[in-house]
Amino acid sequence: MLDPPEALIARPGFDLESRATDSRPGFDGSAKSGRRALRGASAELAELQERLYAAGVDGARDAVLLVLQGMDTAGKGGTVAHVVGAVNPQGVHYTAFKKPTDEELAHDFLWRIRQHVPSPGIIGVFDRSHYEDVLIGRVHSLASPEEIERRYGEINAFERELADAGIHIIKVMLHVGFDEQRRRLMKRLDRPDKYWKFNPADIDERQHWNEYRRAYQLVIDRTSTDVAPWFVVPADHKWYARLAVQQLLLDTLESLDLGWPPARFDVDAQRERLRTLAILPG
Amino acid sequence: MLDPPEALIARPGFDLESRATDSRPGFDGSAKSGRRALRGASAELAELQERLYAAGVDGARDAVLLVLQGMDTAGKGGTVAHVVGAVNPQGVHYTAFKKPTDEELAHDFLWRIRQHVPSPGIIGVFDRSHYEDVLIGRVHSLASPEEIERRYGEINAFERELADAGIHIIKVMLHVGFDEQRRRLMKRLDRPDKYWKFNPADIDERQHWNEYRRAYQLVIDRTSTDVAPWFVVPADHKWYARLAVQQLLLDTLESLDLGWPPARFDVDAQRERLRTLAILPG
Repeated sequence: MLDPPEALIARPGFDLESRATDSRPGFDGSAKSGRRALRGASAELAELQERLYAAGVDGARDAVLLVLQGMDTAGKGGTVAHVVGAVNPQGVHYTAFKKPTDEELAHDFLWRIRQHVPSPGIIGVFDRSHYEDVLIGRVHSLASPEEIERRYGEINAFERELADAGIHIIKVMLHVGFDEQRRRLMKRLDRPDKYWKFNPADIDERQHWNEYRRAYQLVIDRTSTDVAPWFVVPADHKWYARLAVQQLLLDTLESLDLGWPPARFDVDAQRERLRTLAILPG
Repeated sequence: MLDPPEALIARPGFDLESRATDSRPGFDGSAKSGRRALRGASAELAELQERLYAAGVDGARDAVLLVLQGMDTAGKGGTVAHVVGAVNPQGVHYTAFKKPTDEELAHDFLWRIRQHVPSPGIIGVFDRSHYEDVLIGRVHSLASPEEIERRYGEINAFERELADAGIHIIKVMLHVGFDEQRRRLMKRLDRPDKYWKFNPADIDERQHWNEYRRAYQLVIDRTSTDVAPWFVVPADHKWYARLAVQQLLLDTLESLDLGWPPARFDVDAQRERLRTLAILPG
């Protein structure tokens, strides 16, 4: 895939309608070659994650935060399974943000988010995130327009703070089409092993399709910053979306130029200790 | 592998010394066939995990808690990577319990543990656990003998409570030999890409080998209960230990007889809603 960040970035003013949901920016191969590329890069991702983790053990502050947003069926779950699933679970902190609890609602909207910010060396994954508070929050008027406006600023300040603390933020909107969503929802209704994934409320939300589009457009305009830009990933082709997210992760990890940490002890002295230590009678 | 629970269970009175760390109870194939069996069962484990997760979404209370204990280098990390790594990260809650913080020490020893008990549908993984408080706690006299004794009872009550709440507990001691530990530690000293895994304190702990053995023996005698028995998994062969833990997980999940949840809505009515819903002019 060619320069994934450049192919997928959405800076303020980027028009969501200009990116077709069935397009494949930066990749002109077949679906088959795309799937092969995805599998092929899994080992590289796993090794880079191990290096990130090792750096964290050694005291480096770097962490990665992958934020996944998108309409129902956009492929957040599949991306987690097929992209993040390739790395050691020890180094992943996955959080699904659902409907807030009463306790969470009693706090500032970032309160519950902060509790899941990844520690050094960890890849954090947010399946939905603080952006729900300016998406469903706007569409369903769960907060006043003034409050929603204020939240954009608070989000930018929050993400700047994370970036300053060494967290590399990758914000992905999985951009699925209206017709493709119908196909995917219909599949859940056609297959008894998928019933559990279906919720009649998904169709309620679908009725607000254009309002969500506008809310996403505003999110991009207000919160795509230099330290935490948005990437709009066309998601009608699942294999493409997964490959794109994998490449964004790889690109971020490669940019850290992660070596293996040096020994923080005298290697020969430790070898000698180890060699001479016999089991004690016991 | 033949009847993994029966081959590996350690009931009170089980003599730790009786199980050779390089043995392969219940499996008489080659290393190669063991590795193949491990790879071959990954898809089955992933599907059973998805069924468990689906049941959780549907309101069932079942969850699984895999507790991994063992000396340094016993293979806890590799087991997480190669066994748990095969399932969707969405359905896993992994926690590494390190040296307790001041805040954690100010609370009862189970306080920090309770915060990571898996929710319904989730496979929780404890990389070290509340057992550290009766292992390193005993070896280094971090608590009085009376306090340690009391803890066994509190652990049993705690695990009984979890079991009553639908959590299926699998407690694994990865049983590595003294010589094999030396080889593994030495490897960390021989390979610069492994330095970060080495800590001189690991050799300090190694000096207490027999005391740890006795502490583990007491753990088995006091806390191997019907609802949460211990499994002692010989761990000198990494492939065997991974296969054994995978089989214990499979056995537990299979025992739940997990089907796919039925539709909790009128499938035809939802199909019709979906079919007729058109995109609204934007």
